[in-house]
Amino acid sequence: MRIIPAEGMNEFLPEQTALRDMMIERIVGTYRSFGYSKITTPAIEPIENLDNSDGGDNLRLIFRIMKRGQKLDDALASGDPASLSDLGLRYDLTLPLARYYANNRQRLPDPFRVIQIDRAYRAERPQRGRSREFVQCDIDIIGSESVDCEVELITVTGRALGSLGIGDFTVRVNHRGVLRGVIKSCGFPDGSADTVSVTVDKLDKIGEDGVREELVGKGFSAGCADRLIDVLCSGKLTVDSVGEYADGKTAEELSSVITRAAELSEGKYGVRFDPSLVRGQGYYTGTVFEVESLGFGGTVAGGGRYDGLIGKFTKENIPAVGFSIGFERIFSILSGSGIKADGKKKAAVFYGEDEYMAAMKLADGMRDEFDVTLVAKKKKIGRQLASLEEQGYTRAIFADRPDEIKIFGENR
Amino acid sequence: MRIIPAEGMNEFLPEQTALRDMMIERIVGTYRSFGYSKITTPAIEPIENLDNSDGGDNLRLIFRIMKRGQKLDDALASGDPASLSDLGLRYDLTLPLARYYANNRQRLPDPFRVIQIDRAYRAERPQRGRSREFVQCDIDIIGSESVDCEVELITVTGRALGSLGIGDFTVRVNHRGVLRGVIKSCGFPDGSADTVSVTVDKLDKIGEDGVREELVGKGFSAGCADRLIDVLCSGKLTVDSVGEYADGKTAEELSSVITRAAELSEGKYGVRFDPSLVRGQGYYTGTVFEVESLGFGGTVAGGGRYDGLIGKFTKENIPAVGFSIGFERIFSILSGSGIKADGKKKAAVFYGEDEYMAAMKLADGMRDEFDVTLVAKKKKIGRQLASLEEQGYTRAIFADRPDEIKIFGENR
Repeated sequence: MRIIPAEGMNEFLPEQTALRDMMIERIVGTYRSFGYSKITTPAIEPIENLDNSDGGDNLRLIFRIMKRGQKLDDALASGDPASLSDLGLRYDLTLPLARYYANNRQRLPDPFRVIQIDRAYRAERPQRGRSREFVQCDIDIIGSESVDCEVELITVTGRALGSLGIGDFTVRVNHRGVLRGVIKSCGFPDGSADTVSVTVDKLDKIGEDGVREELVGKGFSAGCADRLIDVLCSGKLTVDSVGEYADGKTAEELSSVITRAAELSEGKYGVRFDPSLVRGQGYYTGTVFEVESLGFGGTVAGGGRYDGLIGKFTKENIPAVGFSIGFERIFSILSGSGIKADGKKKAAVFYGEDEYMAAMKLADGMRDEFDVTLVAKKKKIGRQLASLEEQGYTRAIFADRPDEIKIFGENR
Repeated sequence: MRIIPAEGMNEFLPEQTALRDMMIERIVGTYRSFGYSKITTPAIEPIENLDNSDGGDNLRLIFRIMKRGQKLDDALASGDPASLSDLGLRYDLTLPLARYYANNRQRLPDPFRVIQIDRAYRAERPQRGRSREFVQCDIDIIGSESVDCEVELITVTGRALGSLGIGDFTVRVNHRGVLRGVIKSCGFPDGSADTVSVTVDKLDKIGEDGVREELVGKGFSAGCADRLIDVLCSGKLTVDSVGEYADGKTAEELSSVITRAAELSEGKYGVRFDPSLVRGQGYYTGTVFEVESLGFGGTVAGGGRYDGLIGKFTKENIPAVGFSIGFERIFSILSGSGIKADGKKKAAVFYGEDEYMAAMKLADGMRDEFDVTLVAKKKKIGRQLASLEEQGYTRAIFADRPDEIKIFGENR
């Protein structure tokens, strides 16, 4: 029997779980206050749904569940390894959401503001240090084409992040239509926008020179590459000049999203146009956004409009826009900063022989203010008290002398 | 692509998820107020841990996850179907807890009061209408032999159930030592206690005649069977007379648990001795308890002392006692009774063209009291209002005339 968890699986100590639960409570509380509803979808999906989904590289990381009983015997006899599994663990929350929406649409509000905070699974290579089981935290608005949704998502996500205490952050915003227009205007041939975008997406990692080199390596001219990097990175392209690269509607909407979202931030975080922002996922169709932590570096949330995906199950074009908070990233930032969940204060009531009922009654009287643990008194009470203090207890009381209160810590 | 969830998997609508979240909040809140800590363990365990565990029939219901890449190819080439999986989904929360305790013991308090509310998986036959993914809700005290733990578990579980509003319930209590003593005193041969207990466990389902018949069918004498049923079901055996069948310590402890737990119930639920209570699990070693819902029928919680199981990973005898609330059973009772989560009240702010920012500010001013959704005004506002009322909204306000408040419902 193996004592440590399976590779890439995490378990969490009480204080870590308390911090994760506090994060969930604050995020969900913020989202609910804007009219979002939480739903629950199963972690297991039919394997054909997963295999036929738009998950890109994630499709190679699916945990496949074996058939059982006679069906497994038949599959083994067939000699076809692909037939051995009938179910799989979801690799994200978007595919289950699309299926859920198709299945329950007539019982859901229109538009549907939805929260999912739940586990997903990917068979990442353990060497990369990535978790194979992790919590994703998504909000989506399904059924509305209005860019008011974008403004709302940026605002509510900004407030949720603000409630978590991760320090300063900035929301970067772009539009796929602008990026396509810029690529075209720089002289790249028709049909090359996707592959050029894939390279631009690596800007943070490989820098301007790396992007130039990779584009030339892909067979594009150095002139095109230089012009593109100049437009995207020089700061010349502002939200007021996007009209040069995109149609009037796109330009106006992007400007309206950024202006309004910036005003609603009340100066607590920045909202700015970034023409070089790609966001990897191929399914984005319009606005894309990403939140960058200034104190800790890196992306802590991202999202965008993806009008094609949700309707996949119903063969309709259902507009949708979503924002995903990097739950595990933020948990690692907060726990690394020594931030603790702010639950109720903890108290202990010590009892000796025949004092149990008195102790329980004493404890009940304190439960409005404290989480109260009953502790059977041992001979060496000093060690018991030291252990309680270490666990964060702030009060100890003795059942036989309830007026004598032992207070731990100074500032508690 | 398949629109409905995979067989036996459940998805939950917003109002169902809100009810489940409310249940979790109340249960966890009650447990925390008694000093219990929540932990998180992975849903995926190494397959060897699951296969070698004490899960009885559950071992046949494990969802097995296929190996990946070269390891899968090797396993396929070996021709041994048992080698195809390296991981599995947990069938309960007790095995992960035992592994977790062994792995983290030095960082946990002693005794360890622990909460787990999380999913488990069993490949039940879909025909039986059972879920294959379900939430279990366990509390355990690990590391103490004292029956004060039993008193506490009954009390805190009684209060958690009381907080859920499932109506009247009774806690039945027995002790494995008493049951073994009764079986022996009725003349059953040595070593037959387990198989006799298995039959007695069916008393609720097959009745006294069924138990008698099954015992005779197992080769025991009708005299033994009659004596057993008389002792267990006639009401003659009371907590004051258990000393006839069990050693003095067992009798005294059982009496002390029942007397104290009954007093701490403050008359809100019954706590009574039931010598016929078995609780199926073979791993129980001492006290066992079960909660019966009087209004809705059936068991809503159960547990007992299991001193051998937790130490399995460390080869030590670590005392432990636990109580498990039937989360899915209680959810089905509550949702069947039309009980709803009592979240914040819901309000809508309608806005027309160019009124978005004003509406958002109006909404922000209401968010202390309400969860507020922004609604783009359509031409047929009557339908929008009707839909909001149906969704449980109690207020609607218009951004262009904020003093005119539309109130839904009478008693809201």
